[in-house]
Amino acid sequence: LVERLDPCRIACGQLAPVIGDLEGNRARAAAAIGDAAARGAALVVLPELCTSGYVFADADEARSLAEPADGPTADAWRELARRHGIVVVGGLCELDDDGALRNSAIIVDRDGLRAVYRKAHLWDREQLVFLAGDEPPPVVETDAGRVGVAICYDACFPELMRGLSLGGADVIAVPTNSPVLGPVAQPLAMELVVAMAAAHVNRVYVAQADRTGDERGVSWVAASVIVDVSGALLAGPLDGPGLLVAEIDPSKARDKRWGERNDVLADRRPDLYDRFLLTTRTTR
Amino acid sequence: LVERLDPCRIACGQLAPVIGDLEGNRARAAAAIGDAAARGAALVVLPELCTSGYVFADADEARSLAEPADGPTADAWRELARRHGIVVVGGLCELDDDGALRNSAIIVDRDGLRAVYRKAHLWDREQLVFLAGDEPPPVVETDAGRVGVAICYDACFPELMRGLSLGGADVIAVPTNSPVLGPVAQPLAMELVVAMAAAHVNRVYVAQADRTGDERGVSWVAASVIVDVSGALLAGPLDGPGLLVAEIDPSKARDKRWGERNDVLADRRPDLYDRFLLTTRTTR
Repeated sequence: LVERLDPCRIACGQLAPVIGDLEGNRARAAAAIGDAAARGAALVVLPELCTSGYVFADADEARSLAEPADGPTADAWRELARRHGIVVVGGLCELDDDGALRNSAIIVDRDGLRAVYRKAHLWDREQLVFLAGDEPPPVVETDAGRVGVAICYDACFPELMRGLSLGGADVIAVPTNSPVLGPVAQPLAMELVVAMAAAHVNRVYVAQADRTGDERGVSWVAASVIVDVSGALLAGPLDGPGLLVAEIDPSKARDKRWGERNDVLADRRPDLYDRFLLTTRTTR
Repeated sequence: LVERLDPCRIACGQLAPVIGDLEGNRARAAAAIGDAAARGAALVVLPELCTSGYVFADADEARSLAEPADGPTADAWRELARRHGIVVVGGLCELDDDGALRNSAIIVDRDGLRAVYRKAHLWDREQLVFLAGDEPPPVVETDAGRVGVAICYDACFPELMRGLSLGGADVIAVPTNSPVLGPVAQPLAMELVVAMAAAHVNRVYVAQADRTGDERGVSWVAASVIVDVSGALLAGPLDGPGLLVAEIDPSKARDKRWGERNDVLADRRPDLYDRFLLTTRTTR
């Protein structure tokens, strides 16, 4: 009934990109991909906008750091994916065919560029720079199972995480840049809580790669984490730059049963969800 | 722009019901309502099935402990609501007009029985006893703001928590019985993680009242908690029986803005959520 798949290792690279340093950031990404491969990972997730940096002065600066989805970063990752037999998911500043800037993530494997996802929920000043995506994120069949993608603030929309799970994702890769907005919640940062809850209610793995390193006065939560289908932490969080590695079993994510009589997707009641009233109702 | 409402206190009673002891359980509920009022609460949430107990031997036993939604428990709570000027939300074993058993929660205030909600997502052996509800949960305007309801496993369906938020809930009351199913996740039980994430992504208060006390070999997570609109813990968790109290400001839950440029409900992309493919897609 449940398809048998082999367990594999996956990794999240928590990088410290330097804004504007395209070559240096690509080198940091390449090093993380190499480290992940050396540690036996079949999939590595890298942060949002990991080649450009995040805190752009303006749209012009972002444009100067943008590249096509199938540009130099994709070329470099394809070469590394082939050499190491690894799947790479990471974020970059995309210049699309129409000249618009996109906050995108790409999925690259030994076969090349498999999918491009353009962030659909833009956070704060990203709205001044990027055009939001108009397509739901993809789920791609890879050597590490079916990989879905969400970017940072996207993960705060349970509809999107649910949609990826209904779409068959075994692992949701979440390239992230989580700026510190105030006191970080204890005992777990809210970015970890949200990732854990999404994993738990969907019985899906979540591999979230956040960034670290101060950038133009912004610091980062460093909320990289690999979460089990139960919602439990498998690896992370971590201070500073580094690599998280954990073993996953994609077949567990294809079995949505919970206990003897429940199934977290089959138990959904779309008949009710579509009928929520937009005004209050009472018995009077 | 944002309606001004007065802050108020809310409470969650973590009870230890005894299966079959209707009178004793009603007395425990009444004591918790009295305690909450004495501590200044405008709303008190009590656990799922708090008058009957949970671990029924069979449907016949549940039937022997069932009552109409507007039966003796509602009568007692209305009387207490009038005396103390408090809103009560709690769970009971309902015998409906057609003779079916329902795992229900009622909302009672000084005006009487305001709403009945029948749990729509039944956990495990509840399926052998109860008929699942066929209506979305209500949002009721009360002296403590707009109160929505979800029961236990319902909270694992982000669609339902989102629907209540879109429906205008300031506080989602979650009567709960969380059986311990295995090692409890650290540093936070998953029932707390799910409540915190729901609060955070919807900017809504969550008031979850769990039970405690061993029952027929089942122990309980004791996951009672009051969560802020940011997702932060305001009160709880707590070992053993007791009352959680926290101050809330319903006007904060009506302001869905997050930072300067975001709004957690207005930022939704229903156009995309409706278009998720149910099969994998790739660029090939």
